[in-house]
Amino acid sequence: MIALLAGGTGAARFLLGLARVVDPRRLTVIGNTGDDLDCWGLHVSPDLDTVTYALAGLLDPARGWGVREDTFHCLGAMARLGHETWFRLGDRDLATHLHRTRLLREGRSLGEATETLRRALGVPCPILPMSNDPVRTRIRTPEGWLAFQEFFVRERAKVEVLEVRYEGAARARPGPGVLEALRDAEAVIVCPSNPVTSVGPILAIPGVVEALRATLAPTLAVTPIVGGAPVSGPAGRLMAALGLPVSAVGVAAYYRDWLDLLVVDERDADLVPAVEALGVRTAVADTLMTDGARAAALARNALAALGVPG
Amino acid sequence: MIALLAGGTGAARFLLGLARVVDPRRLTVIGNTGDDLDCWGLHVSPDLDTVTYALAGLLDPARGWGVREDTFHCLGAMARLGHETWFRLGDRDLATHLHRTRLLREGRSLGEATETLRRALGVPCPILPMSNDPVRTRIRTPEGWLAFQEFFVRERAKVEVLEVRYEGAARARPGPGVLEALRDAEAVIVCPSNPVTSVGPILAIPGVVEALRATLAPTLAVTPIVGGAPVSGPAGRLMAALGLPVSAVGVAAYYRDWLDLLVVDERDADLVPAVEALGVRTAVADTLMTDGARAAALARNALAALGVPG
Repeated sequence: MIALLAGGTGAARFLLGLARVVDPRRLTVIGNTGDDLDCWGLHVSPDLDTVTYALAGLLDPARGWGVREDTFHCLGAMARLGHETWFRLGDRDLATHLHRTRLLREGRSLGEATETLRRALGVPCPILPMSNDPVRTRIRTPEGWLAFQEFFVRERAKVEVLEVRYEGAARARPGPGVLEALRDAEAVIVCPSNPVTSVGPILAIPGVVEALRATLAPTLAVTPIVGGAPVSGPAGRLMAALGLPVSAVGVAAYYRDWLDLLVVDERDADLVPAVEALGVRTAVADTLMTDGARAAALARNALAALGVPG
Repeated sequence: MIALLAGGTGAARFLLGLARVVDPRRLTVIGNTGDDLDCWGLHVSPDLDTVTYALAGLLDPARGWGVREDTFHCLGAMARLGHETWFRLGDRDLATHLHRTRLLREGRSLGEATETLRRALGVPCPILPMSNDPVRTRIRTPEGWLAFQEFFVRERAKVEVLEVRYEGAARARPGPGVLEALRDAEAVIVCPSNPVTSVGPILAIPGVVEALRATLAPTLAVTPIVGGAPVSGPAGRLMAALGLPVSAVGVAAYYRDWLDLLVVDERDADLVPAVEALGVRTAVADTLMTDGARAAALARNALAALGVPG
């Protein structure tokens, strides 16, 4: 079993590649819930949904979020009723949030809701929320604290980041199966996701870093930063705010406490010595995943670096 | 001000006709909530919504419920997740239920939610739920008790009716403004709605029948039964179950305690003596409302019978 720490779009692309080269039933995905939000009274888990839709073959490939060919008729009607619509929930996507919200109101856990969703949609592997307890990534900007989605979607990540907090993380328990997956895995892969706001919240759950340090499995991360900028999303601005170099070196520095291997993009091969100086071994590969074949090749390279058979 | 007791489809048609012949700001609609239901965790008020959509110009004219040209993409996705979909919520319609549910969860009343909805959709007159307290019409059938929508929509009203109950009605308080509207109206009109399950729940709220008896306004009902059968819906089966004739005579018998005038369909003019024998005066008109002009003509006839200027 391969355990994966996953954020949203980048993780989804990598998982689709990985599912081409290993039996997807061998995967266990540990998903970020730090950017969950309440939208229109519904509990939305954007990263869990992106991963679920990807593995179900439903993800919109152009947007990298939401259900392919979805419509936004409910959203238009919500706008007419005076509701905020900067977080765009599609009509088909809404079913996921209605389902989850109903189960949560009935006292089921986020993990149980996620499990029923992935099964109903035909995803062959478990997707485990990092925690069933609420953890919310908050970003301090010159205008004050924002929820992650307010920063990322509403403000399009265009405001200065002064500080990042994972509210609730210190009291949160790891989701059922999370620590066991890290312990029992034959390999642990950190997907090419934003270190600060996609992977950081998972690492902030008490016990996760300890499990990553203790596991006998080799641990590998794929850099989400290529040529000094993130492939997608606001990772650069967030890493800089934390004083990290916006490069594979910064990624290695963030994970070095427990990381064995970092996949550095071939465009950044000159960074290999700096990464290795941090005590992190490297593999060099094309990490851009511009299509499914390239994502599969990246996954194959990662497995080879880990010494795990595909 | 003209106060109206209203159910769903028949009431909507009549109100559209009435709004052509009087300034709609003169109307106050008192709506049935006995067939409200929880669908997918959302509070749905079918009769309030039908009336609201009608007066907003949004009602689907063919179905007589829901938003015109709506799509059902969320419903399809809910089916895939294993949810019941016999109650068909359209994508645009969903916004109404999300809005209402959110306000109710925040502690607002059904009346407040209805008021924000009708204002946002441009409805020029108040729509008052009969009560802010939960009242649920339940139908006893040979297979047991059904919620009204289970009987009407899921079972297509094709099961035998043994008994009807308005659960919660005895403890329910009239919605704010309901008794005042009946007291202060220049006329009260009972729309051509199902007497048993559309108007009956309103009458079951303590104080409503007393207000209808006490008001100085003339009270008029439009029969929803023509030629021995309801124009739409299951009124016939329900009236028969209560031992009422399925005719204008049965309607008059059901309302006679407080009703001044009944509009009998011209096809049933032979029933006029039997209705008048119950102490209810009659007006004879075409009640079928097959188009907007006929609905307006019916409304004009009702106003003339009431002696109310249009």
